[in-house]
Amino acid sequence: MNLVILTEQDRVGKGRFVLADHRAVHIRTVLRITPGETVEVGLVDGPLGTALCESSSEHELVLTCDHWREAPVPTPTIDIVCAIPRPKTLRKLLIFSAIMGVRRILFVRANRTDKSYLQSPWLQPEQHRPFLLEGLSQGRQTRLPEVHTHQLFRPFVEDTLPDLENREPVPSVKLLSDPYAAQVVGELGPLSTGPRYLLAIGPEGGWVPFEMELFAAAGFRPVGLGPWTLRVEMALVAAIAQVSLVDRMRNRHE
Amino acid sequence: MNLVILTEQDRVGKGRFVLADHRAVHIRTVLRITPGETVEVGLVDGPLGTALCESSSEHELVLTCDHWREAPVPTPTIDIVCAIPRPKTLRKLLIFSAIMGVRRILFVRANRTDKSYLQSPWLQPEQHRPFLLEGLSQGRQTRLPEVHTHQLFRPFVEDTLPDLENREPVPSVKLLSDPYAAQVVGELGPLSTGPRYLLAIGPEGGWVPFEMELFAAAGFRPVGLGPWTLRVEMALVAAIAQVSLVDRMRNRHE
Repeated sequence: MNLVILTEQDRVGKGRFVLADHRAVHIRTVLRITPGETVEVGLVDGPLGTALCESSSEHELVLTCDHWREAPVPTPTIDIVCAIPRPKTLRKLLIFSAIMGVRRILFVRANRTDKSYLQSPWLQPEQHRPFLLEGLSQGRQTRLPEVHTHQLFRPFVEDTLPDLENREPVPSVKLLSDPYAAQVVGELGPLSTGPRYLLAIGPEGGWVPFEMELFAAAGFRPVGLGPWTLRVEMALVAAIAQVSLVDRMRNRHE
Repeated sequence: MNLVILTEQDRVGKGRFVLADHRAVHIRTVLRITPGETVEVGLVDGPLGTALCESSSEHELVLTCDHWREAPVPTPTIDIVCAIPRPKTLRKLLIFSAIMGVRRILFVRANRTDKSYLQSPWLQPEQHRPFLLEGLSQGRQTRLPEVHTHQLFRPFVEDTLPDLENREPVPSVKLLSDPYAAQVVGELGPLSTGPRYLLAIGPEGGWVPFEMELFAAAGFRPVGLGPWTLRVEMALVAAIAQVSLVDRMRNRHE
């Protein structure tokens, strides 16, 4: 727990928060913060702060924080399109996305999404929050990624994605991770005006040709991540790491 | 299981292998290979092949393979130096390293290595193999990464690393992942005649200043991976993904 994430539900006064769950236990027994000491906190979708531990018992821990500072907003802005994965992978994708400051995760049912995955309780929006909060805490982030799930592939790519795109101030760079792509992300030439990327990460076994074609028609360009067959959550990390690196190098050279 | 990994222990004849463990179950019940059908196989530290399923029962599965082809060797060659992590992370590092074709993993006891981690049974060399094999199978690799564990930090950096380096035909590019580094891997200027990299991935909480200084004296250059606080196994993936990308872009331009 690199940052103690606070929510409005924890608030009992203006700058006063009461924790009575695993966070309190962690602060007391792992971080070993005692009353009078301070701990770094972040408010969900809000600022960072240094909170004072007022009291601590087996049952609850009271923190006060009156001085807040802006949490840095990750740059570039990265949105992810991802095939609905097996539940264990879904959980990792939520945590990893929050750690890496992803703005929005769009899960879509792909041809290779096993039917059983759709029954996963973890696919329900109310189940995402604990994993996202765990990621924020690990990654020292405060901005909760948006998560959406779409059951129909074609309308998602043909209608939903353009609708979302139209609401943005600048067009995104759309990339599709494809092990057979001839190019890597650094070889695509000038990318765009915006520091905004939409990355499509395939399911185990990859997107099927029909899906690849729809993505291509929607403006996605295939890129290879490297000579590996990665797990989905590893592909997420590799893709974000490479896109962020190339984005930063481009901006330095301009 | 993207590739069925065979070992010499499975061999019962020239091109004949008998499996009686989870691989046989997976081939029968997940891949649903029946006698007469073929499956992709790889021999540990050896070639790839297409094996014929001769027979399959609840107890064992017999494969024959007479035609082998060279397994591709990952490029660039990547060696990893990593602080001895908590057991759960160690397991992931072994799997992820095998997936990404890492040649050698050097675990070293760091200042921030918790004493309890040293008691982990998973630190014993004979415990590594199942995780490495799982990674080879996922990553379609056949070359088993070498794993070494070192208990003393200073002699490791001052003696062991130079000894290993002296045995190599070309010097390695040595990089140290450091969240406070001013530069990213693409900004370091000309790197080497390579293509060989030695990447040092810190423990949770990072290397301490004393360790950073010894690494710097040993020729390691600090690089930032991006604006994130990553889990160790994510840092491994991000570092390898970025180094491979930059290596490939450099080689294209030369």
